[in-house]
Amino acid sequence: MTQFSFDLHNTDGKARTGIIHTPRGDIRTPAFMPVGTAATVKAMLPENVRATGADILLGNTYHLMLRPSAERIANLGGLHKFMNWERPILTDSGGFQVMSLSDLRKMSEQGVTFKSHIDGSLHEITPERSMEIQRLLGSDIVMCFDECTPHPAPEDVAQKSMRMSMRWAQRSRDAFGDRPGHAIFGIQQGSVFKDQREESAEALKAIGFEGYAVGGLAVGEGQETMFQVLDYAPDMLPADKPRYLMGVGKPDDLVGGVKRGIDMFDCVLPSRSGRTGQIFTRHGVLNIKNARHKDDPRPLDESCTCPACRSYSRAYLHHVFKAQEIIASMLMTWHNLHYYQELMAGMRDAIAAGTFDHFKSQFHAQRAQGDIEPL
Amino acid sequence: MTQFSFDLHNTDGKARTGIIHTPRGDIRTPAFMPVGTAATVKAMLPENVRATGADILLGNTYHLMLRPSAERIANLGGLHKFMNWERPILTDSGGFQVMSLSDLRKMSEQGVTFKSHIDGSLHEITPERSMEIQRLLGSDIVMCFDECTPHPAPEDVAQKSMRMSMRWAQRSRDAFGDRPGHAIFGIQQGSVFKDQREESAEALKAIGFEGYAVGGLAVGEGQETMFQVLDYAPDMLPADKPRYLMGVGKPDDLVGGVKRGIDMFDCVLPSRSGRTGQIFTRHGVLNIKNARHKDDPRPLDESCTCPACRSYSRAYLHHVFKAQEIIASMLMTWHNLHYYQELMAGMRDAIAAGTFDHFKSQFHAQRAQGDIEPL
Repeated sequence: MTQFSFDLHNTDGKARTGIIHTPRGDIRTPAFMPVGTAATVKAMLPENVRATGADILLGNTYHLMLRPSAERIANLGGLHKFMNWERPILTDSGGFQVMSLSDLRKMSEQGVTFKSHIDGSLHEITPERSMEIQRLLGSDIVMCFDECTPHPAPEDVAQKSMRMSMRWAQRSRDAFGDRPGHAIFGIQQGSVFKDQREESAEALKAIGFEGYAVGGLAVGEGQETMFQVLDYAPDMLPADKPRYLMGVGKPDDLVGGVKRGIDMFDCVLPSRSGRTGQIFTRHGVLNIKNARHKDDPRPLDESCTCPACRSYSRAYLHHVFKAQEIIASMLMTWHNLHYYQELMAGMRDAIAAGTFDHFKSQFHAQRAQGDIEPL
Repeated sequence: MTQFSFDLHNTDGKARTGIIHTPRGDIRTPAFMPVGTAATVKAMLPENVRATGADILLGNTYHLMLRPSAERIANLGGLHKFMNWERPILTDSGGFQVMSLSDLRKMSEQGVTFKSHIDGSLHEITPERSMEIQRLLGSDIVMCFDECTPHPAPEDVAQKSMRMSMRWAQRSRDAFGDRPGHAIFGIQQGSVFKDQREESAEALKAIGFEGYAVGGLAVGEGQETMFQVLDYAPDMLPADKPRYLMGVGKPDDLVGGVKRGIDMFDCVLPSRSGRTGQIFTRHGVLNIKNARHKDDPRPLDESCTCPACRSYSRAYLHHVFKAQEIIASMLMTWHNLHYYQELMAGMRDAIAAGTFDHFKSQFHAQRAQGDIEPL
């Protein structure tokens, strides 16, 4: 059986391209992972997600443990079979969403207890339980259970939070055990404090993981601050393992992240924006509900080859969006995911060719020329 | 250019099979037309509607005239291009929905004035305006503007209504003019009164149409009464033209309609039921929200080849339905439309083979054995 491994093929400055090998297929990096929260990438059939170029999906432990439950999914043959996606799946640990979505949570050294946002039922996640859930789901890449330190955090609060996450990282690794073909990633915390990022990276490396995430960013600190942290944080993580920036982001966040040595990203933005009519194009963001699209026979982007652009006008997409038709979400989500995957493919090719800086300049120049509506 | 024509290939009792030829492609009869109200068959991409076996869609004049407007669609190249469906489209006249959906309508010999249910704006539909709208949309099969007589109606009210519809039929035919490759269908009214159905049929035949609809049924009279009318009403219409039963229906309505000489049907039932979790199968109706499906690894129907049945369990469909995920509507609509088209194909084959009665017995027997939940 293929084991989990990472081959770094090319670097261009700090930007990297390579392949993560897994028994369920290869993941070309830099990779963008569409989010399939409740065992579906909203408004998409999985074969169409694949057609956009996605090699891997992200599933949410918090949502799936509450509904339909990890045990139920395991009995039905695992998450891949359940949702009809045979390629790799990365699952988060549930930590981030238990903080942002659930009620009445109580956190201790042991873990977190909370009430479901769906039915109010009481649940607990500990590092050990998170590992168990992710194993029941059949996740290919398991994330450590951690606390995503809120922003802004005073230095002592951030440190206390990071150190607990590092103890949880050890418990996660211990509970994960030895599972050939499956990987567990550690998550660096430390907020915007360089010495804490360093301490966290050292703690994770001492434990040893198949990959490393930069956590605690994209939580309201803004792109400038995020990039400041990314100017040093990824460098602290092993160069021969994948580096994953969690919950990011907008197209220019991805380009800036890759430039700083990130290999993997996930974000709900392209799929959520597809449902709210925010369209990502080479020229920036287009808001389909704007009345100026009402009579426009042009596609969203003349150079795009996605089904929405090949076969439909802006006028049609405006119409079905205003009429609240499901096809609006279907087509615009498809377009956005296609755009994101094309962007990743463009970056991979540029890194391989040693032209990443040129690619990045062109990326920004096209947006500056375009008819951009701020998101 | 291919003209509009109807070739009757086989009859088996009163049941008929044949082909309606149009410049945009053939329509195999008996035919079921999925409804694409607002320029989309809800939750389906048009290529997937085609993949279920549909030869023709129905578009709603009332909805499209209000949003995005017939003139806008015409400027954008017509409804086929607008909605990415190159095959035939039949449009209704707007008459039925103006009665059921709009506010403050006023009917006169001239036509109907009403307020839009979307924005309260004032509109008028007359037979002449209905023909103009359907021409602007680019409809292949245009329906006469008529009044769908409510049920129950006293005999004199039904007669008055039917006679106005017959005057409107003449005005519709006159306004339609001569449009090679396009067809206009007359609509028989007369409620449940045989002599009025006869009078209506004679009036329509005297005007002359490319096809004839049986109107004023499926409006609350129940299947038994509908079949009583269908025992004689279709026979009054020309045998060498297509006969269309408007707004019908459930699977057993279709089988009973074909048995009585109907060639075309349309109904929102399979698509609407797909969104509300009512699944049509050979064994009857399955309600996906029922908790008994929660752990069921079986597909909706083991013998069905649609994507929902090929790749997903009842447990998954139950989950995504409960989680209100769009994919639930996408997959279950696809299944229902696939089932309807398979049913039509089965009837066409049986009629061609002279075994329609056997087919009908089998159809009812399978449902009787099955795990039927009443609709």
